[in-house]
Amino acid sequence: MQALPGFRDFLPEGCAKRNCIFARWREVSRRYAFVEWEGPVLEPTELYKKKSGSEIVDQLFNFTDKGEREVAMRPELTPTLARVVAAHEREFKKPLKWFSIGQFFRYEKQQRGRLREHFQLNCDIIGENDLAADIELVALCIDVLRAFGFTEKDFVVRISDREFWTDLFRENNVPAERWDELLQVIDKSGREPREKTAEKLGHLADPVFAILKSGGQSEKLDKLVDGLCRRGLADFVAIDVGIVRGLAYYTGIVFEAFDRAGKFRAIAGGGRYDNLTAQLSDDALSLPAIGFAMGDVVLGELINEIPRAREAMQKAITSDRKIDIYIVIAKEERRTDALTQIQQLRDRGYRIDYSLTPTKVARQFQAAEEEGASLALLYGDEWPQVKVKNLATRAESLISHDALLDSVAKFLNMPGSV
Amino acid sequence: MQALPGFRDFLPEGCAKRNCIFARWREVSRRYAFVEWEGPVLEPTELYKKKSGSEIVDQLFNFTDKGEREVAMRPELTPTLARVVAAHEREFKKPLKWFSIGQFFRYEKQQRGRLREHFQLNCDIIGENDLAADIELVALCIDVLRAFGFTEKDFVVRISDREFWTDLFRENNVPAERWDELLQVIDKSGREPREKTAEKLGHLADPVFAILKSGGQSEKLDKLVDGLCRRGLADFVAIDVGIVRGLAYYTGIVFEAFDRAGKFRAIAGGGRYDNLTAQLSDDALSLPAIGFAMGDVVLGELINEIPRAREAMQKAITSDRKIDIYIVIAKEERRTDALTQIQQLRDRGYRIDYSLTPTKVARQFQAAEEEGASLALLYGDEWPQVKVKNLATRAESLISHDALLDSVAKFLNMPGSV
Repeated sequence: MQALPGFRDFLPEGCAKRNCIFARWREVSRRYAFVEWEGPVLEPTELYKKKSGSEIVDQLFNFTDKGEREVAMRPELTPTLARVVAAHEREFKKPLKWFSIGQFFRYEKQQRGRLREHFQLNCDIIGENDLAADIELVALCIDVLRAFGFTEKDFVVRISDREFWTDLFRENNVPAERWDELLQVIDKSGREPREKTAEKLGHLADPVFAILKSGGQSEKLDKLVDGLCRRGLADFVAIDVGIVRGLAYYTGIVFEAFDRAGKFRAIAGGGRYDNLTAQLSDDALSLPAIGFAMGDVVLGELINEIPRAREAMQKAITSDRKIDIYIVIAKEERRTDALTQIQQLRDRGYRIDYSLTPTKVARQFQAAEEEGASLALLYGDEWPQVKVKNLATRAESLISHDALLDSVAKFLNMPGSV
Repeated sequence: MQALPGFRDFLPEGCAKRNCIFARWREVSRRYAFVEWEGPVLEPTELYKKKSGSEIVDQLFNFTDKGEREVAMRPELTPTLARVVAAHEREFKKPLKWFSIGQFFRYEKQQRGRLREHFQLNCDIIGENDLAADIELVALCIDVLRAFGFTEKDFVVRISDREFWTDLFRENNVPAERWDELLQVIDKSGREPREKTAEKLGHLADPVFAILKSGGQSEKLDKLVDGLCRRGLADFVAIDVGIVRGLAYYTGIVFEAFDRAGKFRAIAGGGRYDNLTAQLSDDALSLPAIGFAMGDVVLGELINEIPRAREAMQKAITSDRKIDIYIVIAKEERRTDALTQIQQLRDRGYRIDYSLTPTKVARQFQAAEEEGASLALLYGDEWPQVKVKNLATRAESLISHDALLDSVAKFLNMPGSV
């Protein structure tokens, strides 16, 4: 028996890596004073229809539940956020700066960087129209990646603006109901034969290809990049109007983060979706909004690829896994005394391990080393004294068992003092 | 549009509480040197059929996926653990001491303490037959609850042994294929009319009722309780052979934690399941195992019920939510300078907030207070000096902007020093 295709078992090593990714995501989001929230992993299928765009709906893990409801395992968070904000916005001061860490699902062909589930960080600013929000959000995206040890040599955030394209459509008298379709054509233009794109674009083909080749001029995009420059983040961004994003609900600035080597899919992506809460609220409440998502799968691959990031991750995992004290029971007559003190030490918050059953002393010390213990306490012939061994310095001392708790506190604060 | 019935939206307050529960779960598990792992939330339905027992299978969120696979949103973790351990056990030293924090799903009637999803802590020891493992695991369950501020006056762990009952069945020549069914009858006996239970038990009714009334004698249970006594946990446990648990796979010790007032469902429950890995492994690998699970819903209700726990939770949430510094932009000409320093301060790991758009100074200070900032830095007429205000003491001082980063580090370590 195995896990379903596209689903992962997280054994301790993989789980530690995942938790380390979560910890960085959470820490940097909180540096930006974002507050955490979370939605349900199962939602009415309705929530994604029309809003997310056809690509996502085709890949839904959806079914009819035992109460005859059409439900779907969530493919993305933004529609849930718009639903929740539409229902609760009066309870909060605007702008909301919210982040969330959770799991998402898509039924699609497995390929590199794409499974059928992944974890995502979602960060959103709701209720602020000003470009300052766009700058803040892109800066957050950059800083989240920098927290993994990546530099401007490793990744770049490509920024675009759907309004740049919709302005062009308007100038060319393209009816508004065709805009979504044309944006999707431009989004796919890098992955499709030029003739196919040209055919779909019709009389727009020439101006679009010219812009994609030479780059476009946009005052808004220049301002956005300027704001990032002032924060010292200029080297992490590039204007690229070819970025459009696949989701249907984006209305303005859109962006994607890529590895510089071009080896992977987008590491993160997001944009403005100013009309989504209105679509999901009873009273058509309109709240400007911008957000991005970053998945753990491509990110994890990039961490493995870049030595600096890989080493930082490995170091964080090793240090996080360490226990404080291993209790070596050298004489079985002392097991009860040892267990009493194990309970007391754990009550003080220390991470303690010991062998549940009689084991050779050498094997107990070996386990202490493997688990990265700072101290070993040996319960044996020395009783009522306990031998304290500093596993880094190998220094040993004898401490009376009734003075042990205070001594251990001292030793663990000053590892060299034993 | 709302969340599906039985599913929760976690707004910031609720999410903070959930995260606080996760943090306690994780912290105490790690004091016991348990290591974290996680399985998929979607599994083959097959994994739960027969193994978990009919109650769970009737309540599965199951469906046929687009690849014609019978799949289910997981109702519990133990079958996944047995599957994963059966596949990977050679990679790890025994015993494994593993914990996991994740979400689980059941399609059932909503009632107090039962939704259609909840989060669970699962802790398991795999590969150790000795009663020392049972004692360690029950102690961990007790210590997890103590970490929320609960005392022996608030909860009790009731411990039983399925072997106590199967021994009785054997003495009374009950064929082994009826044991599961009879255990379920005893499990339900407290919730069913006595006559109905008596009818199902047949000639066993008299001895079973006698034991349920007077309590049973069990050397194993006495030893287990004795082991907990030596750790100072005697007041948290009681032998209660009426505890049987609903799951089909338990083989030995079983236990459940209840609030003393008897107001809620079980807060946690677990037991030995020595045969489960053999059922899920190709080579019928048999590994003794014991584990427990604790859900966040009943636990959350008990936290609200007990003032000590409720206050501890509220304090943890408030302290966790605080930002370090609020940047007050008193003159818009200083916004760019402020943003440069905001970036530098965040790079150093501080939690910083500021107003994205021009805002009255009084409102900025109000936001600083509401977010629990330790310091406010004011960028205005004093430039190139910055006014540093300690929001606890109200003390103010002026610092040159180029000395600010070091000064802030000092201020945040010694909050009284401004």
